[in-house]
Amino acid sequence: MVEELVFKARILQSALPYIREFYGKTFVIKYGGSAMTEESLRESFAKDVVLLRYVGIRVVIVHGGGPKISQTLEKFGIKPHFMGGLRKTDEDVIHVVEMVLSGDINKDIVALINKYSGKNIYAVGLSGRDGQLIKAKKLDKEAYFKSLGLEVPEEDIGYVGQVEGVNVELLYALMEKAYIPVIAPIGVGDKGEAYNINADLVASHIAMALRAEKLIYLTDTEGVKDKEGKLISTLRKEEALRLISEGVIKGGMLPKLRSALEALEAGVKKVHIIDGKIFHSILLEVFTQEGIGTEIVE
Amino acid sequence: MVEELVFKARILQSALPYIREFYGKTFVIKYGGSAMTEESLRESFAKDVVLLRYVGIRVVIVHGGGPKISQTLEKFGIKPHFMGGLRKTDEDVIHVVEMVLSGDINKDIVALINKYSGKNIYAVGLSGRDGQLIKAKKLDKEAYFKSLGLEVPEEDIGYVGQVEGVNVELLYALMEKAYIPVIAPIGVGDKGEAYNINADLVASHIAMALRAEKLIYLTDTEGVKDKEGKLISTLRKEEALRLISEGVIKGGMLPKLRSALEALEAGVKKVHIIDGKIFHSILLEVFTQEGIGTEIVE
Amino acid sequence: MVEELVFKARILQSALPYIREFYGKTFVIKYGGSAMTEESLRESFAKDVVLLRYVGIRVVIVHGGGPKISQTLEKFGIKPHFMGGLRKTDEDVIHVVEMVLSGDINKDIVALINKYSGKNIYAVGLSGRDGQLIKAKKLDKEAYFKSLGLEVPEEDIGYVGQVEGVNVELLYALMEKAYIPVIAPIGVGDKGEAYNINADLVASHIAMALRAEKLIYLTDTEGVKDKEGKLISTLRKEEALRLISEGVIKGGMLPKLRSALEALEAGVKKVHIIDGKIFHSILLEVFTQEGIGTEIVE
Amino acid sequence: MVEELVFKARILQSALPYIREFYGKTFVIKYGGSAMTEESLRESFAKDVVLLRYVGIRVVIVHGGGPKISQTLEKFGIKPHFMGGLRKTDEDVIHVVEMVLSGDINKDIVALINKYSGKNIYAVGLSGRDGQLIKAKKLDKEAYFKSLGLEVPEEDIGYVGQVEGVNVELLYALMEKAYIPVIAPIGVGDKGEAYNINADLVASHIAMALRAEKLIYLTDTEGVKDKEGKLISTLRKEEALRLISEGVIKGGMLPKLRSALEALEAGVKKVHIIDGKIFHSILLEVFTQEGIGTEIVE
Amino acid sequence: MVEELVFKARILQSALPYIREFYGKTFVIKYGGSAMTEESLRESFAKDVVLLRYVGIRVVIVHGGGPKISQTLEKFGIKPHFMGGLRKTDEDVIHVVEMVLSGDINKDIVALINKYSGKNIYAVGLSGRDGQLIKAKKLDKEAYFKSLGLEVPEEDIGYVGQVEGVNVELLYALMEKAYIPVIAPIGVGDKGEAYNINADLVASHIAMALRAEKLIYLTDTEGVKDKEGKLISTLRKEEALRLISEGVIKGGMLPKLRSALEALEAGVKKVHIIDGKIFHSILLEVFTQEGIGTEIVE
Amino acid sequence: MVEELVFKARILQSALPYIREFYGKTFVIKYGGSAMTEESLRESFAKDVVLLRYVGIRVVIVHGGGPKISQTLEKFGIKPHFMGGLRKTDEDVIHVVEMVLSGDINKDIVALINKYSGKNIYAVGLSGRDGQLIKAKKLDKEAYFKSLGLEVPEEDIGYVGQVEGVNVELLYALMEKAYIPVIAPIGVGDKGEAYNINADLVASHIAMALRAEKLIYLTDTEGVKDKEGKLISTLRKEEALRLISEGVIKGGMLPKLRSALEALEAGVKKVHIIDGKIFHSILLEVFTQEGIGTEIVE
Repeated sequence: MVEELVFKARILQSALPYIREFYGKTFVIKYGGSAMTEESLRESFAKDVVLLRYVGIRVVIVHGGGPKISQTLEKFGIKPHFMGGLRKTDEDVIHVVEMVLSGDINKDIVALINKYSGKNIYAVGLSGRDGQLIKAKKLDKEAYFKSLGLEVPEEDIGYVGQVEGVNVELLYALMEKAYIPVIAPIGVGDKGEAYNINADLVASHIAMALRAEKLIYLTDTEGVKDKEGKLISTLRKEEALRLISEGVIKGGMLPKLRSALEALEAGVKKVHIIDGKIFHSILLEVFTQEGIGTEIVE
Repeated sequence: MVEELVFKARILQSALPYIREFYGKTFVIKYGGSAMTEESLRESFAKDVVLLRYVGIRVVIVHGGGPKISQTLEKFGIKPHFMGGLRKTDEDVIHVVEMVLSGDINKDIVALINKYSGKNIYAVGLSGRDGQLIKAKKLDKEAYFKSLGLEVPEEDIGYVGQVEGVNVELLYALMEKAYIPVIAPIGVGDKGEAYNINADLVASHIAMALRAEKLIYLTDTEGVKDKEGKLISTLRKEEALRLISEGVIKGGMLPKLRSALEALEAGVKKVHIIDGKIFHSILLEVFTQEGIGTEIVE
Repeated sequence: MVEELVFKARILQSALPYIREFYGKTFVIKYGGSAMTEESLRESFAKDVVLLRYVGIRVVIVHGGGPKISQTLEKFGIKPHFMGGLRKTDEDVIHVVEMVLSGDINKDIVALINKYSGKNIYAVGLSGRDGQLIKAKKLDKEAYFKSLGLEVPEEDIGYVGQVEGVNVELLYALMEKAYIPVIAPIGVGDKGEAYNINADLVASHIAMALRAEKLIYLTDTEGVKDKEGKLISTLRKEEALRLISEGVIKGGMLPKLRSALEALEAGVKKVHIIDGKIFHSILLEVFTQEGIGTEIVE
Repeated sequence: MVEELVFKARILQSALPYIREFYGKTFVIKYGGSAMTEESLRESFAKDVVLLRYVGIRVVIVHGGGPKISQTLEKFGIKPHFMGGLRKTDEDVIHVVEMVLSGDINKDIVALINKYSGKNIYAVGLSGRDGQLIKAKKLDKEAYFKSLGLEVPEEDIGYVGQVEGVNVELLYALMEKAYIPVIAPIGVGDKGEAYNINADLVASHIAMALRAEKLIYLTDTEGVKDKEGKLISTLRKEEALRLISEGVIKGGMLPKLRSALEALEAGVKKVHIIDGKIFHSILLEVFTQEGIGTEIVE
Repeated sequence: MVEELVFKARILQSALPYIREFYGKTFVIKYGGSAMTEESLRESFAKDVVLLRYVGIRVVIVHGGGPKISQTLEKFGIKPHFMGGLRKTDEDVIHVVEMVLSGDINKDIVALINKYSGKNIYAVGLSGRDGQLIKAKKLDKEAYFKSLGLEVPEEDIGYVGQVEGVNVELLYALMEKAYIPVIAPIGVGDKGEAYNINADLVASHIAMALRAEKLIYLTDTEGVKDKEGKLISTLRKEEALRLISEGVIKGGMLPKLRSALEALEAGVKKVHIIDGKIFHSILLEVFTQEGIGTEIVE
Repeated sequence: MVEELVFKARILQSALPYIREFYGKTFVIKYGGSAMTEESLRESFAKDVVLLRYVGIRVVIVHGGGPKISQTLEKFGIKPHFMGGLRKTDEDVIHVVEMVLSGDINKDIVALINKYSGKNIYAVGLSGRDGQLIKAKKLDKEAYFKSLGLEVPEEDIGYVGQVEGVNVELLYALMEKAYIPVIAPIGVGDKGEAYNINADLVASHIAMALRAEKLIYLTDTEGVKDKEGKLISTLRKEEALRLISEGVIKGGMLPKLRSALEALEAGVKKVHIIDGKIFHSILLEVFTQEGIGTEIVE
């Protein structure tokens, strides 16, 4: 039995080099996909986040909306309407979107983390309207559609926003006192109005504003794949640009990769795209040499 | 014209004795009723809160739910069911209640205040699940119904809670840095579950935990009235107890007055019940000698 | 009656935009003239200063000497002797000047402010010899008289000084703890000797050293006037220079305007020349859009 | 020559035990008599004060008025009028007294110390009206005259005060930043009016409020003497009381000794009465075993 | 392979409840025996200590001397002489003892820990003479020998000491800045002379002075055993006393157990006696439920 | 007798200008030679260091090894072997060297200083392995021997090191809390191994890293001498270079002077080479105008 225990201890020790390296650094984690919806994955995520915080890593969570937004809109009798991958977000829609993001999903994540957090550390939920955290303006429709090679529609896209600035002071005030900020991807406009913003982009902007050590995307894919569909473990910037220009990267991975590259440019050390369907995927990526998923570096 | 200006200045000066007195003190304001629903009253409220904070008063807002909860439940096709004045709150209902309180009303108030707050001060929205702010447990049904002289129903009341404790550290961390906490009356249970709690009671518990100078209830009535229906300006504890025992106080005023008396006992200096339908009612009550509404003192 | 109160509250609210703007900023006020000698104006001044401090503005007062110096010299049997507008200040004279400024006028202003200051804020009187606050040397007689187009007199001017440097640390130590420094325009020379310095110049040097938001001259005139004798509300730098070169500005206004321009150059945001004979003139200038007097800007 | 230097060094070293003992402690020094009027004694005093501060002792100076008050009153044509050793102080007199104390003597002492203080330490002059430092009320005439065994006069004594309280916060704010407070014995009444207070009593009240290690009276006598006129080196409380009751102590020494005993009672460790006519008398008393003068202990 | 990684992650997670519990607490570890002499056990010890510090536990190491003292004395030609289990420690001996403890063993442990410590945390070696850390006096020979039921010898025991006091401030100054103090069991007497003190006792005194959460003895035995020689997992105070009085506990375990009981009395939460020959024995005892060795509790 | 006392006081006062000048500055003192071995000189040194610290000077001591290393090596039966003035330091030798330096000499100096230090200030002994204070690598043998004009030997020099970097944070942490660091000239290599480093060089590197005001070498010579053997009181950089190039400086003085010049280059204000055989030589050099020994300046 002692042998078993010693084996356990050796594994604990194997994390030391990583703990040492990341002590006092900031990780921004984009939380979404199955990791946010399946109960056992949720628990595994919460414990990982708490463990990271206890070993001295400053963690900030940015979450997406998932299927709950559509479900709730449906209950409200609002039919989904998408344009170029974006949800048309009129006043009724933004109202429901914010309610679901800030009042339901956000608080559930907070409570989930606090279930494991002990008495020294707590999660606190924020929307971009709290403390004017995420300043936003209406999405530049023309630029957006053109970047996708699509025709720019006449129709108004509504309260879909883009990040104008991040008010890091509220985050610092909370992180100093060992709170874990959990952020809903709602931005605030000049008149206080709410904007729905892509959570991947919010995460990368928060990471840039905090000059984070790592930006981690928890997704439902294994990572970035090459032409042959093989997972790429480490992706350098130039190679990523090549893959994009060759059209190998497409769909939801495209904006993720673009924001990853932008984040690297702005001083974030590493971006990770990992499979949230694997238990403890964050710990695995951070605390083992092999890692899982794709790490993107300068 | 100069005379007019000097007249204005004299009025500004008339606030000095009150500013001097309340500098550095904490006011907990229960925000609800028309002051929360009518646009012009909302603006007047927001400006008052911001002004109080700028003159050195630490303000904490606790808001209720108002008609939005019932409206949203209806949209979800859930029929309201009340027992002894309490909404039966099963899992579906608490879900909607939290979403409306923390994700809709709370963020709207935050944005409203931030519209007037300038760059030194910001509102930050919190639910009782953030930072384990309001620890709660299921309402003691028996005690509750007996206290109202009603028969205790068999039926389960669901996720209706009562305050078990307040985690003031998160509030201090925010107030130190000049943030204005805006709190939704949701409590968190042992397993992280949400409870719907009466906002008046949440406000009085927050005031007690912060040893506030003032607890202010913004209501839709003028204040406490005597047997003849005349407004009572100042109400002493013993008189309040007498009015209660004589049955003069009833309806929604009864729990408000009870929590006011409990707050005084626990060290809160004064409780105010004022008419939120009057513009700038908070400033009037705080910064003029006459005041409006009823003040309750030891 | 409630209407009246609401009207009052609206006026209080009208100050919010200004409070918001000047929160945490520093105002240096040159105090003199009738505002310093007439009892009711004195009270109005003291209350204004206290109110400014309570709403978060860091106030520093620099006062002049007024008629008291001459009166006291007379009692001592010393006859006034002026040269080019400057009092000849031999050892006997500087002795009386310092005594009146630092021991009489200064302490009276301190007591006046403390009468209204409450328990969180206090005025503290300082002379330039305290903490080596205002380092001075003998006035450069030649430069001075030449700048006025006058012949340089043979006679010694005595202990008339000019500012060599300001030791801001003592001011910061006091302002951090919410004290209001009240400064007598006495400078200290290399050997510890006292110098009589023009209070307008002391005020502008203090404002420059503190990089003040505003430098306010309380005078006995309405403000700067144009060729036709009409009050100029806002005066830009170039226009001021033009008015000086055209000889429109003369007398005591000339050095005031010159030091105003020097202060703007050194980073002070705005200089105000206002009529201290109007009640609450400081509040009026600071907290209303119309203002009174002249504001001088880059 | 080296021998001479080594001899010097040995003397420097002889101060170490005292420096070690008093490091971080507070000394309140009542400054008056010849030490305040004779130039060479003044310099020796200033250097001693500065040296004490540099070796880590927190020094507070309280000064008296000396002959300058009478001289100035005379120049103003006011005749001195004494009652039971107290100057009758009507409005004209208090005006001159304050001016001389706070504006002349105080600032001269400040400048004197700053002449030797270097760039890390500065003296700052304060009157009891600054920061409401010394709260005072009119002297209790009846108690005073009775304590002296004199008949209580009908005549009004005017603005002669007694200490009601000391506002230590201003002193702490200054001492923390290495300033040396120099205090004029002027108290402030409820309406901001000035009171003339006996400097010995002000010194003992300041020492009590600061729980000083030492209260040192610089006088023009060698110290306390016994019946035979022999200097007493160390005087215990009981013996002091005996000497008073036996009438051995009289004149100006009587109130000094009484306030010394009161100070000991309130927690001051030792009171010293020393001869200010000896050069460096403070250093001698503090830094040598023999000392000079009388030390009074519990 | 992913399964293997997930398995690893689960083990990392299994430490979370313990990390959460001990975050911010102090552990004092007595380091000695094989864990100090065998290379691979040394490395395992160093990594454990560093890991504990990174997860927020304040670690203080007290080490013994081991065989090196005797070896070095031998090289110096000094023959060991023991009395009642104590080394007779004359001036020559204490000289060598201190040199070996503070200059050899201590610095080797420091370097060992720093090899694994990364750039945020460092070990710093101290003897009880540094900062007057461990005040000591000569061992009370009579009390000591009587407590062992031995005759008190005539012969002088020399520089063998007992702890008189611990100067915790130096430890706090270092621990605040994330240093790990490593302490040699040398005490300092009134004249600065060194004393050799039993390291077990030094450890328990340091633990008491710091009100440590845990005092851990790393030994060469499995733990405390009962009459039948079976390891006792958890030992309550009364049972420990019974075992002592029944003579079950003897030899080196006796003083260890006595100092354990004394430590519990003084507020230390738990004392652990564990087998340092097991790899990662500290981690095993602290981070697993089963633990190894004996824990002693009130 | 009073005259004698006054004379003493005047001497105390004569130190004021120097205390004023060096307040808050850092002095690094290389301690060695007779000052370290003769009892009465040791006491005089300890008192001087303590006095410097009490008057606000931050003192850091670096000591050498003196005859004790050879004596101890001899007892161990190790024969000294020197190459180009350097001790060949194999594993056995470095072991003894460290033990003597860090465990014997270092702790004796610490105890010596603490004997005089009082309760506000303490010495703490450190080796370069504590807190990774002095990072070192093996001496560049080739560069060393060539710089001396000697043939580079084949033989390995062993653990003789040179300074690679100084970790000032540990020193700051201790000095902030009024501790006096006493440093043994042992460096730490990449693998934690100890290196013997010339103490003069360690002292100059510590002085450079702390940007010290003074670097003081306590030696057994009077100072630097010119061609005629006359002591040079003040030596400018260019002159020093000339003396070196002309071969006037030789022996142990050569590396001392070289490190002095390097220290000046790196921002140290003055380097002093003084005769430690004179009592209180440090005080004499620092606190008198004449000084003793040689001061080297830019």
